[in-house]
Amino acid sequence: MRTIKNSPLTRKLSNFVALTEVELAVLARLHKRRRTFEAGRDLVHQGQSEQAAYILASGWVCSYKTQTDGSRQIVDFQIPGDFLGLRSVLLHTSDHSIEPIMEIQAIEVVVDDLLEAFAQTPRLATAILWAVSRDEAMVVEHLVNIGRRDAGERMAHFLLELGVRLTQVGMATKMGYTCPLTQYHLADTLGLSAVHVNRVLRQLREKGLLTFQSGQVVFDDYDGLVTLAGFDPTYLDQAGPLLKQ
Amino acid sequence: MRTIKNSPLTRKLSNFVALTEVELAVLARLHKRRRTFEAGRDLVHQGQSEQAAYILASGWVCSYKTQTDGSRQIVDFQIPGDFLGLRSVLLHTSDHSIEPIMEIQAIEVVVDDLLEAFAQTPRLATAILWAVSRDEAMVVEHLVNIGRRDAGERMAHFLLELGVRLTQVGMATKMGYTCPLTQYHLADTLGLSAVHVNRVLRQLREKGLLTFQSGQVVFDDYDGLVTLAGFDPTYLDQAGPLLKQ
Repeated sequence: MRTIKNSPLTRKLSNFVALTEVELAVLARLHKRRRTFEAGRDLVHQGQSEQAAYILASGWVCSYKTQTDGSRQIVDFQIPGDFLGLRSVLLHTSDHSIEPIMEIQAIEVVVDDLLEAFAQTPRLATAILWAVSRDEAMVVEHLVNIGRRDAGERMAHFLLELGVRLTQVGMATKMGYTCPLTQYHLADTLGLSAVHVNRVLRQLREKGLLTFQSGQVVFDDYDGLVTLAGFDPTYLDQAGPLLKQ
Repeated sequence: MRTIKNSPLTRKLSNFVALTEVELAVLARLHKRRRTFEAGRDLVHQGQSEQAAYILASGWVCSYKTQTDGSRQIVDFQIPGDFLGLRSVLLHTSDHSIEPIMEIQAIEVVVDDLLEAFAQTPRLATAILWAVSRDEAMVVEHLVNIGRRDAGERMAHFLLELGVRLTQVGMATKMGYTCPLTQYHLADTLGLSAVHVNRVLRQLREKGLLTFQSGQVVFDDYDGLVTLAGFDPTYLDQAGPLLKQ
């Protein structure tokens, strides 16, 4: 029980539901098989069916769609506490691919166990519905990012969003965070070229707003970045649990 | 009970869950207050909190985000059977605005009633989790649309997607459907100008693929459109219920 209380998923869901001991026990029973996956090999392929869902325990993962011309759109990154492939399990067939960007550990979740857990504690189902809703709100922001924001605003918005998400699972502060993403990841996420990504990062650094070097994102001027990006973090929902114990 | 069996929401959820009589009865109890909303007035404002959720019974609705510079990105349209504002209820604060594009009828859903319904029938919670997952899959496609597809592919993909969704609630066939969207709606959805929208629609018509005139979308060559758009409808999940009775 100690482990489950400190797990990233519990920390994340606690933003929405004040989980009871019983609910924590149900959640713990889902955590059966911990698996290790190496970097660069897809956990889930676009178009694959009958796959498992996972809860990411450590490491970062990228989810993306490939077009028939081979170009890649990164939809989002998953960090510890996030579900991997939950949507794919519900939708019969995966609409996207999932690739670890480093060696990761993930807990396999059997779908029948998940549905059984929902039956035992409907509040847990609601909490997971919250998590899926928050994931959708992030994809909506990425849509607005590409559709309506310029390159500097996109970059600032994206790195601020990651900061808030990582803070919710104890992996960042308003000073910054460790970030394993390359310029290619950023390019495929933000619809920019790698060269453009480098230029934008240099401009943000020269303006004294942000430094991204040697795998570290440092917020040199957090409030300035928020203003530049028009970043309103309410969609990430940090207002405290809606469902009390 | 007859009404609920034929409601667009039931038809939609039936793609995922073969609902039992008991589950239909629980769903029926959610349908308490039917309200009418006029066109053009926001049901939900971005940034609003403590709002209700709705199930759309008739008419079309558009959900969008406004940027500080006043530009608008339409995230999606809702058609009968879709939830309105469910994400906003779960996330404390609405991350987007919802506007009827014609007079609509919607059933107000009290959040406590919804959570109570989940407690009674966890399968219903799972079905709604499926619906939210499908909504997210659509937003992902819109992200890929803007990030990676050219104007003709975007338009074809978007109108094909609407066709499949409308077919699932009995409002379209592979021949086409009635569509109240204007060129301004299409422009704000696809990241194009209204002039560009007109040009793209003319090109699709001249190629014998699609005619969109006088509020009617006619698929002149459905398979040709699918090929052009690289449209793979598996993310809309029509494979039949995963959860049997």
